[in-house]
This record gives sequence, structure tokens and C-alpha cells, in this order.
Amino acid sequence: MSEVINKTRAAGRAARVLAAASTDEKNRALESMAEALKAREESILAANSVDLKNFEDSPRFSPAFRDRLRLNGERIDAMAAGLRTLRDLPDPVGEFVAMRRLPNGMDVGQVRVPLGVIGMIYEARPNVTVDAAGLCLKAGSAVVLRGSSEAINSNLELASILGEASEEAGLPRGCVSLIEDTSRDAAIQLMRADRYVDVLIPRGGANLIATVVQNSSVPVIETGTGNCHTYVDSAADLEMAVRIAQNAKVDRPGVCNSMETLLVHRAVAKEFLPRIAEILERDGVELRGCPETRRILPGITLADESDWRTEYLDLILAVRVVADLTEALDHIDEYSTGHSEAIVTGDYARSRRFVDGVDAAAVYVNASTRFTDGHEFGLGAEIGISTQKLHARGPMGLRELTTTKYVIMGDGHTR
Amino acid sequence: MSEVINKTRAAGRAARVLAAASTDEKNRALESMAEALKAREESILAANSVDLKNFEDSPRFSPAFRDRLRLNGERIDAMAAGLRTLRDLPDPVGEFVAMRRLPNGMDVGQVRVPLGVIGMIYEARPNVTVDAAGLCLKAGSAVVLRGSSEAINSNLELASILGEASEEAGLPRGCVSLIEDTSRDAAIQLMRADRYVDVLIPRGGANLIATVVQNSSVPVIETGTGNCHTYVDSAADLEMAVRIAQNAKVDRPGVCNSMETLLVHRAVAKEFLPRIAEILERDGVELRGCPETRRILPGITLADESDWRTEYLDLILAVRVVADLTEALDHIDEYSTGHSEAIVTGDYARSRRFVDGVDAAAVYVNASTRFTDGHEFGLGAEIGISTQKLHARGPMGLRELTTTKYVIMGDGHTR
Repeated sequence: MSEVINKTRAAGRAARVLAAASTDEKNRALESMAEALKAREESILAANSVDLKNFEDSPRFSPAFRDRLRLNGERIDAMAAGLRTLRDLPDPVGEFVAMRRLPNGMDVGQVRVPLGVIGMIYEARPNVTVDAAGLCLKAGSAVVLRGSSEAINSNLELASILGEASEEAGLPRGCVSLIEDTSRDAAIQLMRADRYVDVLIPRGGANLIATVVQNSSVPVIETGTGNCHTYVDSAADLEMAVRIAQNAKVDRPGVCNSMETLLVHRAVAKEFLPRIAEILERDGVELRGCPETRRILPGITLADESDWRTEYLDLILAVRVVADLTEALDHIDEYSTGHSEAIVTGDYARSRRFVDGVDAAAVYVNASTRFTDGHEFGLGAEIGISTQKLHARGPMGLRELTTTKYVIMGDGHTR
Repeated sequence: MSEVINKTRAAGRAARVLAAASTDEKNRALESMAEALKAREESILAANSVDLKNFEDSPRFSPAFRDRLRLNGERIDAMAAGLRTLRDLPDPVGEFVAMRRLPNGMDVGQVRVPLGVIGMIYEARPNVTVDAAGLCLKAGSAVVLRGSSEAINSNLELASILGEASEEAGLPRGCVSLIEDTSRDAAIQLMRADRYVDVLIPRGGANLIATVVQNSSVPVIETGTGNCHTYVDSAADLEMAVRIAQNAKVDRPGVCNSMETLLVHRAVAKEFLPRIAEILERDGVELRGCPETRRILPGITLADESDWRTEYLDLILAVRVVADLTEALDHIDEYSTGHSEAIVTGDYARSRRFVDGVDAAAVYVNASTRFTDGHEFGLGAEIGISTQKLHARGPMGLRELTTTKYVIMGDGHTR
């Protein structure tokens, strides 16, 4: 039997035990995992240094990528702290989301229960291994992890430490497992394992996510691609608009909730664009503008169709002047990936039109798109940001990692 | 461009208009549809008689199938009444499911919004065309229907009447469309249209559903397959157990929430089995039993492995004697399709163990599995019964045909 089938089946057996575990048992396992990470810091760093050494020869080598792959004592502390945060969050499992008595005297309720087996396919960062394992365990599900080849030694060491720690705390080792085979074939097997895996969550670039969506027979929750817009309306407080646009672009340009295109109402373009351009250029942002933007900011590059579609994840910003809110909505409708979209306006009716008219996971009035985040929204933890419409939309915390079942209590009721 | 791409794109445009429609506008369209069905009864019956005539030569011909295909005045009245029921149900769209102020003064809420474009792939019954169109419209989504070839003339006539009626009421005609091409190729195109279709709901037999799950890149909500069990515990009120088992098997054997396997605790098997066998045999039910059941009921057929796995949808029942609750739970865990499972017991602890231990959409104590139904659970309408864990589990009504989006209102907030 293949490694993937073996591990997903073992995860299924572990999931049945885990589903019946009490909150105390799960919390003890999270604490045991946190302690084990610190106790075995040396072996983790040794495995990570093998990955870093191999990585020097990788075609994907870049200093930024290397930095994401690298572990140190501080980062291991942060992983352990993350597990303890999960330990302290309320358990989503067992909550009755509804319960009522029908006219015939039968009680019908819905209780939150674990999903079962969760598959995660993700790219380089080894901290995802620990985050995902902790979140799934607290939500009562077993996790089967499939990281990228660059981090395989770090990931194997981490997953083995976490599996052993959950076993020491009395839960099955199969609660956390990692596919050793980093081939494309193994990934495809995981995507087709609908008999054993209840949901697959890809985390990574647009290509990874598209591959999973196209190939998976397991239900998928798409995460992350964010081609986010900020629209500065003619009725905007321009001082506020400058602050919001700057924050949305430069606070952390490499993440999915940062702004990629700025849309500016024609009536304020001449006043607003030079002000934001000065600030963004000081922050090292390259601007690419539509012809009308370039008449106001002659020094910048001309944006083409591909710029409107690109999630730069970098200090680059596309800028377009629009005639009005309708044109802004049309642009967003055409190019948005449905992640986070913002309007800056002082006009009540237009704020309502924007909120109603934009089809995205998060729609903002007078705030930066950077807030789309599980911690910022108060979920306590986050496994990713769903950009699809089924099951969960926007930041996903512990509750979004569960399902419900109907529970019906009768006294001999028949139809 | 292919018919499927054409119609799904047109549905996308219609969906944007429909998402902005008020409840009154949608209700007027539902009323207009109901009136049009009655006004054009003759043309519907004419189209249906073409289907019935063609069907005489179909390899799928059976009297039961023919009956499901057949329309008459009464059935058209029922369709129109169904649309008026939907008109009178509360609109799920626009409800704020949560809204709170964060410590930084920013308001974060989640509002219920339409899914967008819903694809339905279904088998023979033409009333599904009307039901699905009405449910999707009330939930604010456009629907692209793909029925089976046997009902193509009826379905085309119905879809065209519904599309015209929604246009007369001021909504786009593209709110309801039907794929004319009944080839497998066209169905596969619809399953791969993830760019235009937000969710696909298959309704029909196990083969249809498996094909959709295996081939779809559009997110799927699985519905319907129900290999449902009733476990009669040693602590059961046997009089109650007889009533529940009879109801679960014979009330409507052809539907997904009827019982397919009866599990009986060894301690009560000798008393219970002859009583239930007498009643079920009087109702025309064929029993197939495990060896121990056959020692008590010598006349019946021996059940084999395939019987435990089969959703008969017929007056056939598999019967197995089990040693205890644990063995019953193991059997259910192995063979259940996760639809509806019941225990009959007077024992408090065992009722809790069963509810916690069974992983299904609906878990019953002392009631018939026949209650798993949107109308019975008070949803007012039902598009199907989800047996998967993502998005919706169990009967799906209007609310389950929507998604949410985060709405964030700030005063210039930045991170």
C-alpha cells in the first residue's frame, strides 16, 4: 500500500479517538507538543540546517525564501507559544449551535463536531507544520501534512516530535503525520483520497492552489490569493485615504491582504495622486499607472492588462483613475480574486453601494485591507483565509475547522 | 463558444443583478413563475407527452421511473404551490449573522449573501427543475440546470417558462437556464466550469454523485446516498422499537432516509426479531439476515457483505444480530454513508454513547430516520440532504444556499 493511503487511513483511525477526546486531553497534548519542541530544539535545528544546505543548490533559491525556511531558537519559541495559545482557546467541539423542540415534541439540534481527517498541502515555511497540527488537533481532527521538498527534513523532524508528544499525552500518534514522499505523484494521491480525507486545505502560491482545485476529488477550501483593491472616492477624506493606502501597500507587501491596485476617482486624482505617490516612493514602492494616472505622475511606468491581474506580493502598485464608483465596481468585479476590497469615502450612500456591490470575503469602508486576519478579527488563531464561498469565507479559525451534525431526541416518534 | 460556457456566463451576469434584487422583487418573480406554470399547463403537458413517448424505447424503462417522469394538472399545481411556499418564506439574504465592535473601534460583521451561480445535475423528475429554480432564485443565486435526457422536453419547456416569467417580473431571464445538450461531455464541461459556477449540487443515484465528485473542479455538495441503520438496544422498549423500525422501513422505502439495515442486540433478538419480522412480512418486506438472525428466523435469505453495503431503496431489509452497542457502532462506522442513524434504547448512557459515537448528518434516539427532511426539521423547503461535512450537513434549505461576507466599517483604521 502506498505511503499516502497508509497514512491517511491511520489518520482516520486516530481521528475517531481524537473526536471522542475531552478538551482537557487535547489541551494536555498541545502542552506536551510545546514542551517537546523546546526539549528537542537541537535536533530540529540540525534537520533544518540540512534543508538549508540542500537549498543552496535549489532553483528556487532566493534570500527571502531562505529566510522563510530558516529556523532558530526564537522561531521555535514562537511555535511553542502558538501551541499554548491554542491550548488556551475555547474548544469549538461539542457546542450546540441550535436546539429546539418541534411541534410533535421531538428535539432537533445541531452540535459542532470535528471534520475528521484534514489534509494540508503547503509550501516552504516549517512553522506551518506546527500551526496546522495544533489547530487541527484542538478542533478534534487528525491532520495529514504534505510540505514542500525544500523543508522535508525540518518537517519530518517536527511532525515526528508532534506525533510522539501527542502519544505521550495519551492521544494516538496518527493525529499528526507527514507524507515523506515529496513527489507530485504523492500530492496527487492525497488529492484523490476522498475515501479517507474529509477536506484538503492548500496554502501557498496561486499555482499550488490551482493545481489542488483542478485535481482534487477531496473537498477543497481555497485559501489566500489576494488581488486586493482600495478605491479612493471623490468624497474621501484624502488625509485618511493616504494613511489607509500607505498602510495597505507597505505595512507587509508580501502577504495576501495587502493592496495591489489603487483606484482613484477622477475628481480627486490631481490632488490625491501626487500626495500618495510622494509617500509611497519614499517607501520604495514602484508605481505602474493607467494613461490618465501617467498624465498626473509622468515619471511612472505604464500599467498593462497583466498589471490589473497581478498579485505582486511586492513593493509594486498598479494605479488607475476611474470616472466614478460604478467604474471602480466594474474594475473590481473583473479583476478581484474575492479576498479584501476597500472604499475610502465620506459619502453614506456610496459606502452602502460598495458594501453591497463587491463580492469578496471582506469588504471595508474607511479601513485598511490589512485587517483581514484571524487574529485581527478576534478568532484567536487562523489556518488560512478562504477565498471561496462554500463552508467558510475569510479568515478561518478553530470553528471553521469543524462541521455539525443533527441530533434528534424523540420518545418513539414516527412519521 | 459552447452552450455550457455561454449559459454559465449568462448566469453569472444574471446573478449580479439578482444579488442586488430586493425580497419583494424576488417574491414577485416567484409569483409570476407560479402563474406562468398554470397558464402554460397545456404546453408543459405536450412536452411531457413527447418525453413519455420517447421513453417507451429507453433502456431505463420501468413503470416506477415512468411515473416519476409523468406530469399532470395536479403535479403542475403542486409545483406552483411549491413556488408560492418559497415566496412566503423569509429571505435568507442580508441577515447579519454576527456584528461586533473590536477593541480598536472598528465594526466587523458577517452578512449572508447569495452564492452566485449554482449548478444542478439531476435525474428524471421534472419537478426538480421547478423546485431548484425557485429555491435558488429566493436565495439570490442564478441556477444552471442539467437534467437527464429522458425529461429533456419537459425540462426545456419548464425552464423556458420560468426564465420568461422571471423576466416579466423584472429580473434577468438568465436567472434560470437549462443545458439542452444532454451528452456526458456537456455534463463534464459543467463540472469543470469553476471559473463561472460557484457550487454544483448533484441530485440522484450513487453513480451520478460519484461521477460528479470524481470529475468536478467546481466545489460540490454531495447529497442523498443513505445507507441508514436502526439499532435496537437490549434496553429498548420493544413495542417502540417495532413502531420505529416499521416506519423507517415501509413508510416510503424508495427515499434516502429510509432504513436499510436493522441491528439488534443479542439479548433481545429472540423476542424482538419474530415480532418485527411478522409485521414487515405483512408489509411485503424481504428480510436478509446474518447467520444468527437466520437461526431465529429460519425462513429468510442469508445476507452477505454486499447486503450491508447496499442502499436497497426498496422493500428489502438487511438484519444483523450484534453482541452489544460497541459492535453496532463498529458496523455503522464501517457501512454507513453518513446520512441518518438511529438507536432505540431506554438507557441514558448508551443514548449518549450512540449520539457521540456515530459520524452522520443526523443521529436519532428513539425516533425514525424518516424525519431527516428539510420540511420536517422546519427549514420550510429543501434542495437536498447533504451527506458531506463541508458547508452544510443534513437537510439544506434556503440558508444553506447562501454564503457570508465580512463587512468592516472603520474611521480611517490602519494596522
